[in-house]
Amino acid sequence: MDLWRVVCDAPSVSGDEGPLADAVEAALRACDHLTVLRDGDAIVARTTLGRDRRVVVAGHLDTVPLTDPPNVPTWTEGTGDDAVLWGRGTVDMKGGLSVQLALAVELTDPVVDVTWVFYDHEEVAAHLNGLGRLVDHHPELLVGDLAILGEATNAGIEGGCKGTLRVEVTTTGVAAHSGRPWMGVNAIHAAAEVLARLDDYEAQDVEVDGLVYREGMSAVGISGGLAGNVVPDLCTVTVNYRFAPSLSLEQAEAHVRELFDGFDVRVTDAAPGARPGLDAPLAREFADTVQALTGVAPAAKQGWTDVARFSALGVPAVNFGPGDPLLAHKDDEHCPVSDVRTCYSALRSWLAG
Amino acid sequence: MDLWRVVCDAPSVSGDEGPLADAVEAALRACDHLTVLRDGDAIVARTTLGRDRRVVVAGHLDTVPLTDPPNVPTWTEGTGDDAVLWGRGTVDMKGGLSVQLALAVELTDPVVDVTWVFYDHEEVAAHLNGLGRLVDHHPELLVGDLAILGEATNAGIEGGCKGTLRVEVTTTGVAAHSGRPWMGVNAIHAAAEVLARLDDYEAQDVEVDGLVYREGMSAVGISGGLAGNVVPDLCTVTVNYRFAPSLSLEQAEAHVRELFDGFDVRVTDAAPGARPGLDAPLAREFADTVQALTGVAPAAKQGWTDVARFSALGVPAVNFGPGDPLLAHKDDEHCPVSDVRTCYSALRSWLAG
Repeated sequence: MDLWRVVCDAPSVSGDEGPLADAVEAALRACDHLTVLRDGDAIVARTTLGRDRRVVVAGHLDTVPLTDPPNVPTWTEGTGDDAVLWGRGTVDMKGGLSVQLALAVELTDPVVDVTWVFYDHEEVAAHLNGLGRLVDHHPELLVGDLAILGEATNAGIEGGCKGTLRVEVTTTGVAAHSGRPWMGVNAIHAAAEVLARLDDYEAQDVEVDGLVYREGMSAVGISGGLAGNVVPDLCTVTVNYRFAPSLSLEQAEAHVRELFDGFDVRVTDAAPGARPGLDAPLAREFADTVQALTGVAPAAKQGWTDVARFSALGVPAVNFGPGDPLLAHKDDEHCPVSDVRTCYSALRSWLAG
Repeated sequence: MDLWRVVCDAPSVSGDEGPLADAVEAALRACDHLTVLRDGDAIVARTTLGRDRRVVVAGHLDTVPLTDPPNVPTWTEGTGDDAVLWGRGTVDMKGGLSVQLALAVELTDPVVDVTWVFYDHEEVAAHLNGLGRLVDHHPELLVGDLAILGEATNAGIEGGCKGTLRVEVTTTGVAAHSGRPWMGVNAIHAAAEVLARLDDYEAQDVEVDGLVYREGMSAVGISGGLAGNVVPDLCTVTVNYRFAPSLSLEQAEAHVRELFDGFDVRVTDAAPGARPGLDAPLAREFADTVQALTGVAPAAKQGWTDVARFSALGVPAVNFGPGDPLLAHKDDEHCPVSDVRTCYSALRSWLAG
């Protein structure tokens, strides 16, 4: 727990991960059982024990910005089993990160080979993501039979992640002076139908490999209008579709185009989901271990996480970390100490064998 | 016609009316039958013949910006009765302005007293409007039994003008991550009902003092959205209501609030309309003169014009000027020479008696 506080109290807002990365690198390089590589502010430390299976455990070093006034150093409320650590990063994701760092150092002789990945720039634009950079520069270092990402899951297994597709749905019209609107065609009025379809849309719950993903179809932006006295000739609705990992990007796009049939639809951003992968033997074994310890069955991860990057490499991946994901990025970010203990114990007992 | 070209070829985009105002002032000051006052780039020239009735004839000196390349000097296409003058200001409103300037100089002994008003800054923000400034500084100079504004009307009488009311209709919700939209309430989806009411709205044709005004209810802007992955908590639709002059501002606002019952409505801008005033004896007399000459009956003015400023002073006011109002501000602005002749003849014959 002391390590958790130390890691949290070393601010590492995206772009400023350097000092924390230096400290992590130094701790890992001091371990004879690890082979260490650094790429920018990402660090990969691997055991090479010749085991027949390899597990990748990954977590990001960065956090979203601090609050004003700053919510670090962290502080503890409550005692014993009720103790809670408050402050930036306690949930996203320095709890999972400190568990991973502690075990990387302690587990000199795990039953499987382990690749420990610490990376930068997870909380900002996708093209800066340190794990994505490692995939580009050293894909061979990320290969394994199972990847475990320490993002917050309330210390339960959350499998896979949903995909995300962002489109612009546009309506067009004919501009005119608003004193003579009958001379034009109002593109904003034409968007009534777009919003009606969104408002009427019933999002599906989709079961994939035994886990249920709740889909969502949300307008995330709308804009239109030229001036206060002009009938507008263009209105753009930006829609974000979060879809179950049983759909491919192509299927997701087809679904959105069908929903907005008759309107101009342009895809602006897309990332595939990741299937939960709990049908893989090693993943099943890990899930059973966690469930035996916590009594909580695996669930679907509703957000998009970097497990999709492993999934794209063909590595089954699950999320498993302390803290309530709904508190990530919030001003009142806080995490039960017991969650961190649970994750530490589960991962240690499984890897130590 | 030569005067019209000279006036058009003296560029006077809003803010740069000075040289044209200087020339107009000099021409008027040379007339013994006129008393001249200048206020900024506005000029008021009055006869003081002791007639029992007074007519105000007003027009603005400024134009919207030139095209690129510039559409002045003007040029003529066609000949004789088919001649058309092309270029900036030919419609809005140097045709009416040159008619007014010619008659101000020529009519030394009109049958009614006449107040000739030339003013600046009509094409820009209302608070800069030169006629508005004259209303503030010299309201007594604008009083009369009838005001005639030389804005383009295809050389027919257009009475009054519609009022305009601008409101923001807002919907609110609860922000959430778009990966978990069920945790929030989408304000853009909630705006579906606002747009549906606009799309379903049937604008009325309203008869006022014998003229028919076509109302309009137009969305002129819409905005909402925080980020590409956030369910938005606010959406704002800007609506412009153009209403018949039989409605007061208060009645117009009540109508809009009724239409958007259940939503938050905030008025951001409002200007009353002006009744056509054709029930006033002098206005009727003028309308009959024009109709006898052109065969065209008076019609309603659909746009908002400065006649409303006279109406607010209690002076009945009509629009009467050469050119098609739909060509105002357009790159292909052009006006038949015959329109200018018609306006000149009608106004001259009526004022000369």
